Amino acid sequence: MLNITVTRKNNAYPIHIGAGLIEHGELLKPLICGSQVLIVTQKTIPNHFLSTLQKQLAEYQCDVLFLPIGEAFKTLAEWQKIIDILLENHHQRTTTLIALGGGMVGDMTGFAAACYQRGVNYIQIPTTLIALVDSAVGGKTGVNHPAGKNMIGAFYQPIAVIADVLTLKSLPRNEFVAGIAEVIKYGLICDAELFAWLTNHVDVVLQKDLAALQYIIQRCLTLKAEIVSRDERDQSLRNILNFGHTLGHALETAFAYQNILHGEAIAIGMLAAAKLSSQRGFLTLVEVDQIEQVLKKYGLLANRWELPEMRRLFSLMRQDKKSVGDQLSFILLKKIGEAVRVDDVVAEEWFGLNIM
Amino acid sequence: MLNITVTRKNNAYPIHIGAGLIEHGELLKPLICGSQVLIVTQKTIPNHFLSTLQKQLAEYQCDVLFLPIGEAFKTLAEWQKIIDILLENHHQRTTTLIALGGGMVGDMTGFAAACYQRGVNYIQIPTTLIALVDSAVGGKTGVNHPAGKNMIGAFYQPIAVIADVLTLKSLPRNEFVAGIAEVIKYGLICDAELFAWLTNHVDVVLQKDLAALQYIIQRCLTLKAEIVSRDERDQSLRNILNFGHTLGHALETAFAYQNILHGEAIAIGMLAAAKLSSQRGFLTLVEVDQIEQVLKKYGLLANRWELPEMRRLFSLMRQDKKSVGDQLSFILLKKIGEAVRVDDVVAEEWFGLNIM
Repeated sequence: MLNITVTRKNNAYPIHIGAGLIEHGELLKPLICGSQVLIVTQKTIPNHFLSTLQKQLAEYQCDVLFLPIGEAFKTLAEWQKIIDILLENHHQRTTTLIALGGGMVGDMTGFAAACYQRGVNYIQIPTTLIALVDSAVGGKTGVNHPAGKNMIGAFYQPIAVIADVLTLKSLPRNEFVAGIAEVIKYGLICDAELFAWLTNHVDVVLQKDLAALQYIIQRCLTLKAEIVSRDERDQSLRNILNFGHTLGHALETAFAYQNILHGEAIAIGMLAAAKLSSQRGFLTLVEVDQIEQVLKKYGLLANRWELPEMRRLFSLMRQDKKSVGDQLSFILLKKIGEAVRVDDVVAEEWFGLNIM
Repeated sequence: MLNITVTRKNNAYPIHIGAGLIEHGELLKPLICGSQVLIVTQKTIPNHFLSTLQKQLAEYQCDVLFLPIGEAFKTLAEWQKIIDILLENHHQRTTTLIALGGGMVGDMTGFAAACYQRGVNYIQIPTTLIALVDSAVGGKTGVNHPAGKNMIGAFYQPIAVIADVLTLKSLPRNEFVAGIAEVIKYGLICDAELFAWLTNHVDVVLQKDLAALQYIIQRCLTLKAEIVSRDERDQSLRNILNFGHTLGHALETAFAYQNILHGEAIAIGMLAAAKLSSQRGFLTLVEVDQIEQVLKKYGLLANRWELPEMRRLFSLMRQDKKSVGDQLSFILLKKIGEAVRVDDVVAEEWFGLNIM
């Protein structure tokens, strides 16, 4: 028997953070290697972002596709429309896809880029807070299957992320606040200093002060880039980013992705995980209270949802793609700023929790 | 503006070559990390291969899916059946897919593995000569789109390739001969010694002598692994593997993938490329004749196809995913054993050729 080994290469990509970057053609153009571009965006995109981008790309063949927004449309069928428009317009392997929009646009565009002719370049230009601090970086792309969220997808990295904090100015308040949940998450799992800063700067953040926005986005993306660099394929360290998401996803499923935003669901999930951490003796009750107060100050946990019963949530959490076997994996907090993964959360422990 | 860089990791995978390897449970089991396996195979698979494999995997949850064979079935819809069966049977991220069959099974299984829950492990067990020497190694996976072959797919590497030359014993003669075309290709593009050996060992190869088969498979896979290691994403060196394929793909499209096997089409394509090489002053007419004689000795070029007219073929070749702009890219031979890519083949040059 003969054994041969195939080795593989490295690569890296930049994240640019600043205010007004969409207007900077000099950032974008050196990234485009062919003569073709497809901008994938959403119907709700403020017109000036799209037109600014199109003006800069006037010298290229520049096609535009609008995706409908909502988890119900994050399907293989909608995704195939990206592939169809690329083929109809004869896009070659040198084409560049640009995702201009929220997380859903980024996920679907990234997955189309991953699969079109076995992979073409794409650039992320996130326009929501969640996409800015979370989904645009890290290369998690994909669509939903009737049997589960993000069940079909790829780890596929963009060639660049352009994080323009100005896009947040036009974001509706409820979406902005939902995004803050992901920012608080970074503080809780790995950056106690960021958490303290968020506690002390509620007003400037909610006023969307540009310097404050730039600070939190830089901080979150630096943390995320470091985590993703060390664990691209979500096999160990990257798990901690899932803090609050185990219950969060179950809640989104229970509400059929209606009447609850992703950030709102993970805020509830983070508080539950904090309580579970305290039940295991990791966090003090004072710390749990601190976490709850910060979430509330930012306007999270404000709605009075009728949550499903604990038994149903447990069963939904077991169907998560990160779950292995009968016990649940959870990201807990050892203290504020330090996360730990446990794989042995059983039903009794869960049922003992008062999640809201 | 802040710039952050995300770095990525290496990895590698083994190719095992030998006779009777499918019977070796000790090869397979250490590769399977979870408790679940899905064997994806084809209706035409000899029963003993499948049952041998199933017996070895008795301790795992082992599901089986049969794919229909033929380019017409290499679609996103058929591919989705792999995803569906995985979800129906609650396969987790630790599952392992095994592709047992020809190139189409390998391509579709690999692409399902690439996308299921953003990527699970898969193992290639190729059972045709083309799959053994070509498609099973290199991570090119995918399906067809109505507008073009392999337009949707991914570069996604298996965790191992098990190349069992015994599988060739039950392969129908015409398929075996078609596979020889790919073997001759390796000789022509980068291994003059292999080409000479093939010229002098026609009989033992056609008799499927095991030592001869093992020799050519080892030789081809060593070459392919080296090429793929140096250019995983098909951006430069790997292009030379496309020798004979520019016209070959156009012929397959013209025949709607009926009445012509892939290997038969690329044999015609290789001869045409050799003639083009001679027209450019690279190859002598003696070398072109040598190539033609070897192809014929192996029973290739034997059918009397009614080929489409040269104008139609040129236009079909322009639609190839490797084509950029109006001129054609072609892999030509500088000499036997050395390939070169040219990007400036124009219509006039092509029309001057007598391809058969």
